[in-house]
Amino acid sequence: MTRDDPPAPISLLTDFGTRDLYVGVMHGVIANLAPRVRIVDLCHEIAPQSVADAAFLLDSAAPYFPWGTVHVAVVDPGVGTSRRILCARSSRATYLAPDNGLLSRVLERDPPAHVVSVENRDYFLPQVSSTFHGRDVFAPVAAHLSLGVDPRLLGPEVKAIETLALPTPQRTDDLHGILGEVIYIDRFGNLVTNVPLAELGGIRRVCLGPTVIPGPLCHSYAERSEGSLLAVAGSSGLLEISVNAGSAERVLGARRGDKVEISTQPGPVEPVEPAGSS
Amino acid sequence: MTRDDPPAPISLLTDFGTRDLYVGVMHGVIANLAPRVRIVDLCHEIAPQSVADAAFLLDSAAPYFPWGTVHVAVVDPGVGTSRRILCARSSRATYLAPDNGLLSRVLERDPPAHVVSVENRDYFLPQVSSTFHGRDVFAPVAAHLSLGVDPRLLGPEVKAIETLALPTPQRTDDLHGILGEVIYIDRFGNLVTNVPLAELGGIRRVCLGPTVIPGPLCHSYAERSEGSLLAVAGSSGLLEISVNAGSAERVLGARRGDKVEISTQPGPVEPVEPAGSS
Amino acid sequence: MTRDDPPAPISLLTDFGTRDLYVGVMHGVIANLAPRVRIVDLCHEIAPQSVADAAFLLDSAAPYFPWGTVHVAVVDPGVGTSRRILCARSSRATYLAPDNGLLSRVLERDPPAHVVSVENRDYFLPQVSSTFHGRDVFAPVAAHLSLGVDPRLLGPEVKAIETLALPTPQRTDDLHGILGEVIYIDRFGNLVTNVPLAELGGIRRVCLGPTVIPGPLCHSYAERSEGSLLAVAGSSGLLEISVNAGSAERVLGARRGDKVEISTQPGPVEPVEPAGSS
Repeated sequence: MTRDDPPAPISLLTDFGTRDLYVGVMHGVIANLAPRVRIVDLCHEIAPQSVADAAFLLDSAAPYFPWGTVHVAVVDPGVGTSRRILCARSSRATYLAPDNGLLSRVLERDPPAHVVSVENRDYFLPQVSSTFHGRDVFAPVAAHLSLGVDPRLLGPEVKAIETLALPTPQRTDDLHGILGEVIYIDRFGNLVTNVPLAELGGIRRVCLGPTVIPGPLCHSYAERSEGSLLAVAGSSGLLEISVNAGSAERVLGARRGDKVEISTQPGPVEPVEPAGSS
Repeated sequence: MTRDDPPAPISLLTDFGTRDLYVGVMHGVIANLAPRVRIVDLCHEIAPQSVADAAFLLDSAAPYFPWGTVHVAVVDPGVGTSRRILCARSSRATYLAPDNGLLSRVLERDPPAHVVSVENRDYFLPQVSSTFHGRDVFAPVAAHLSLGVDPRLLGPEVKAIETLALPTPQRTDDLHGILGEVIYIDRFGNLVTNVPLAELGGIRRVCLGPTVIPGPLCHSYAERSEGSLLAVAGSSGLLEISVNAGSAERVLGARRGDKVEISTQPGPVEPVEPAGSS
Repeated sequence: MTRDDPPAPISLLTDFGTRDLYVGVMHGVIANLAPRVRIVDLCHEIAPQSVADAAFLLDSAAPYFPWGTVHVAVVDPGVGTSRRILCARSSRATYLAPDNGLLSRVLERDPPAHVVSVENRDYFLPQVSSTFHGRDVFAPVAAHLSLGVDPRLLGPEVKAIETLALPTPQRTDDLHGILGEVIYIDRFGNLVTNVPLAELGGIRRVCLGPTVIPGPLCHSYAERSEGSLLAVAGSSGLLEISVNAGSAERVLGARRGDKVEISTQPGPVEPVEPAGSS
């Protein structure tokens, strides 16, 4: 890092919402220690304590950030308990989060060279509350990381981290289908499934409960008429169920965890991978 | 642009909300390409696919931004169809938006020297999804524009763009009145009409449905007692209907599109123009 | 301030919400005048015109911001009336807000060297509306302050400012207890009281209406089982009532202003002060 380079950016992902001062105060603490760093608010509207949502969003977003970004994720039902705080560094990013499974998804795709337990109070605020580690631990540690502190100074190496039991799609018995489920629903009511587009060949149909959505896989909403359901190649590289100019969540009364059965058909694979940002 | 000048700022206006990762990922993509650019979140809470609201907000906000700002507006029901993406450059700003009428209002006030259809994939992410052009097209193109790329490198010149059929205020038959309508309702319940203050002389009264609001035009809420309706010179240079310390939307049960009839009176004009930012 | 130092950061605290363009336009105005300044959105979701909430959040957040920060707080039911706009400078920050009590809490803790009435139109936008001083007065004045303008150039010194009648905790008659009240409820449903942790010795029990919460004071949520009520040392240095992994607001049907009675017990004091950021 030369004099003119800005510090590595910091992204913030929390369930703090924007009604209170929690996010603003984290910005203040970071700005105090690293006056020139860019702070990106990735998302603060994670449903309170929904570690799985945070894990999904972080994994989907991280590839689009600059090399070296410090990703801070604070969805932390165990704040103030003996749960550890992890700092993981891969070849392209640094991740800072409670050891509650939040990082397991992103680190599977972006394997870290080091994972440490963050314990060195030299990098914390002088006084640490037991209810707001976002301010007292995560923010100052992230600032120091953005300025170049080596994660190994933060605490001892960690061998095994907590993992989330993430639902994974299964082949049906006859091997002609895939059983998946809805893992995320966005503001527009699009149902994001756990089925990677890369695993799909042609799609005959997609069933969600009693609803049958005919194939093939669409690549844009407008391939179906307004108000129609469609199975679409989502921007995170996963199959999504959508309604053109409408909400699949509302139309289907769908919820996270709903099962989805995809009948595939032989033939040329239609791979659609999420775009890399490099 | 010299070495020490920051790049032109980028403003973002979308209907993406802040519940998901969409806005944060756009920040990530931009920061990756233009590490030193300022990104201003103009608004992300446009009602899904409300092109008219976006057109109004962009037009109201743009004059207050720095010279050279790259305004990115993504309210894009046609994402993935053959709708074009426009880049328009005026003497004071650059605008990037789908060709769906979003830009017609702002470009009427700030006529562009060039309008091109954004087609040159050299400025996109390497892989482009059909459902998230905000990330794959708008964000990287905006970053390149902020760094000085000439819009004419982005694609062929465009002669005619889509326009919104915006409601315009009409003189009443006797020429003593103006017929307008509510075009926007803000968080406080203020009803923004399409009637420019510059067209108003004295106001005798304003009628919205059966409700009669006596003139004259107020210049601040406090000119009427708490809870009272008033016709006020709005900060966007348009007539607004408000309640002091309350919500005109709630008190009147008003909705966008409601008709407003203004009885003017002869006499000295009371021009109130929005402040320029120069 | 040398050429390479960034300007003092600006924090923004308003009741403008994020649905409209108000906050984005303030960013635009500031960026126009101070291209390199950092702007932190402290919070924009203050309930409309809730001066007391804003006063509490500003006081809680300010100590964590960099030395020299310009804190701008616009919760301003009196916009356009003769209410003054105050600029107060202490040894560690500059505060800019309407003279409606918003600053009284923070200035009690951080006494200012100067307080002036902001009247010098040289530092405003050229045209000033009567309904959006956030854009026309607060934003440009904040930008100038961040660039080093001396507050005393903004207007005449002010001797007495408006103060909020803030509820203060009282000793019970027998001196063994404290009567306080709920002054803020956060997104998670934590009930923040006005009782400073520094005034508490041991806690025997806390009563809110008919509900009795046994002591002692907890220092993290997880000291009680999931779903249990607890009295906890809050991150703002105040006693809070919470539910581990739940919402005390919902469980108790609590509201701001609810009375809280704390029975203390003799013994060693358990002081827990908020962490300083210096």
